[in-house]
Amino acid sequence: MTRKTHHVPAEGVETTFRVRYAETDGQGIVYSSHYLVWFEIGRTEWCRRAGIDYRKLEEEGYLLVVTEATCRYLSPARYDDEVVVRTRLASGNRRQLQFDYDLRLLTTGKRIATGATTHLWLDRAGKPIVLPTELRRLFEV
Amino acid sequence: MTRKTHHVPAEGVETTFRVRYAETDGQGIVYSSHYLVWFEIGRTEWCRRAGIDYRKLEEEGYLLVVTEATCRYLSPARYDDEVVVRTRLASGNRRQLQFDYDLRLLTTGKRIATGATTHLWLDRAGKPIVLPTELRRLFEV
Amino acid sequence: MTRKTHHVPAEGVETTFRVRYAETDGQGIVYSSHYLVWFEIGRTEWCRRAGIDYRKLEEEGYLLVVTEATCRYLSPARYDDEVVVRTRLASGNRRQLQFDYDLRLLTTGKRIATGATTHLWLDRAGKPIVLPTELRRLFEV
Amino acid sequence: MTRKTHHVPAEGVETTFRVRYAETDGQGIVYSSHYLVWFEIGRTEWCRRAGIDYRKLEEEGYLLVVTEATCRYLSPARYDDEVVVRTRLASGNRRQLQFDYDLRLLTTGKRIATGATTHLWLDRAGKPIVLPTELRRLFEV
Repeated sequence: MTRKTHHVPAEGVETTFRVRYAETDGQGIVYSSHYLVWFEIGRTEWCRRAGIDYRKLEEEGYLLVVTEATCRYLSPARYDDEVVVRTRLASGNRRQLQFDYDLRLLTTGKRIATGATTHLWLDRAGKPIVLPTELRRLFEV
Repeated sequence: MTRKTHHVPAEGVETTFRVRYAETDGQGIVYSSHYLVWFEIGRTEWCRRAGIDYRKLEEEGYLLVVTEATCRYLSPARYDDEVVVRTRLASGNRRQLQFDYDLRLLTTGKRIATGATTHLWLDRAGKPIVLPTELRRLFEV
Repeated sequence: MTRKTHHVPAEGVETTFRVRYAETDGQGIVYSSHYLVWFEIGRTEWCRRAGIDYRKLEEEGYLLVVTEATCRYLSPARYDDEVVVRTRLASGNRRQLQFDYDLRLLTTGKRIATGATTHLWLDRAGKPIVLPTELRRLFEV
Repeated sequence: MTRKTHHVPAEGVETTFRVRYAETDGQGIVYSSHYLVWFEIGRTEWCRRAGIDYRKLEEEGYLLVVTEATCRYLSPARYDDEVVVRTRLASGNRRQLQFDYDLRLLTTGKRIATGATTHLWLDRAGKPIVLPTELRRLFEV
């Protein structure tokens, strides 16, 4: 029996936000590192939609760390653009997860970036852990 | 008897760093929030010069939080500029501290900003604490 | 005749966002500098509500730079908290503006910070400019 | 005849910096996105060592944008750690460049991350450009 109460569509979860001026750089476009923060926004919403409160998971001692991140920058994003990030759980087992991301401008639908992150579950001491079955089911593809 | 082993000059401690491209914004100059990070660089160096290992203090349960920050932006800083931040302990008692900051460009000496931060000592649970005398002496003006 | 088409209530404009994990620091709470980014989110929404497209203003050569920022940190914000920032135009003339900010947690209403920023209008070359009357009216208190 | 005046060793260029508290997150370790900023620090130093003033290149209308970034996180970095980033030009032609990065802790030599970025040369209007031969030689492997 799983405590998963929400349905996460296989094609992923979408969330929208506006580009902050702070995220632009001297080239007038968003600086590369912020896309990794936007991936985090996507993951947080994926979790929420899946009925997972990630903040609570951390309080219970399950920490999801990033072990690899990759981003392909296809077209620039600018201040005040509305960006839609679609987040999909690509794979998951008791030890690791992989999410992938697809970012588009809301108004034009133009794809601006794609990316992926891989993650490992650690305890507070930084040791890899095996997720209990009940939790593991929440991160099933 | 104090365990203070280093002398911090009253006029403050200087440290130099280069502006990162990531810190610039669409106006081609450094975005306002990064100056507060630069203040932190100044505080860290002030502590080091005073013989204080702030990371260790946190491990021992003494957390210095920011309760107020103010910055006056006088002239812009740009990518790859070398910035000198001079940090001075303005006041300190067993509960609170105030630092002030003076930022200049290394090559021209031009002042780009001044600022101040006030701080409170908390424990891990977020409760205000009184610093032990031995530690309090390290933060004497 | 003004081209101001929207009403900005005197008590200010509210906008809500969630705290990003990236904004937390080793103390488990939001790092001080990010509040200045949150102020920018507030200003952007204030402008939108006032019928001002700030991005367009910059394209037309009117750049609003920060000349002073101050923040009082009253209570910590944590990952995934929903923060409401209320932004008010405190004063404005043809050369300068001042905004002030009030930040609360959405769920509890607890005030977490207050702040203010002052601004100067510059041209692309970084010279102070006087705002044309039509634009100046958009930033009337 | 090249105007390259400095020698960049094939094994790359090293530069050292300290982790800022602002770069840590609620897990007590550096947040993933900051490594991409650290890559930029590495590139800037690589350029300087190669006799290239990147800021000047931008002023002359040659903008290097990031088209792909990847990072493998091997071991955490913490506040005040000294990090050595070694930057190597992996490939380069008249249109594109690839850098790779190797990050270690200064005191222990422990590798904390590896990464790579690919770049495209654009003009101010965002159009891909072909680098003049003289400049292209500065970015020879």
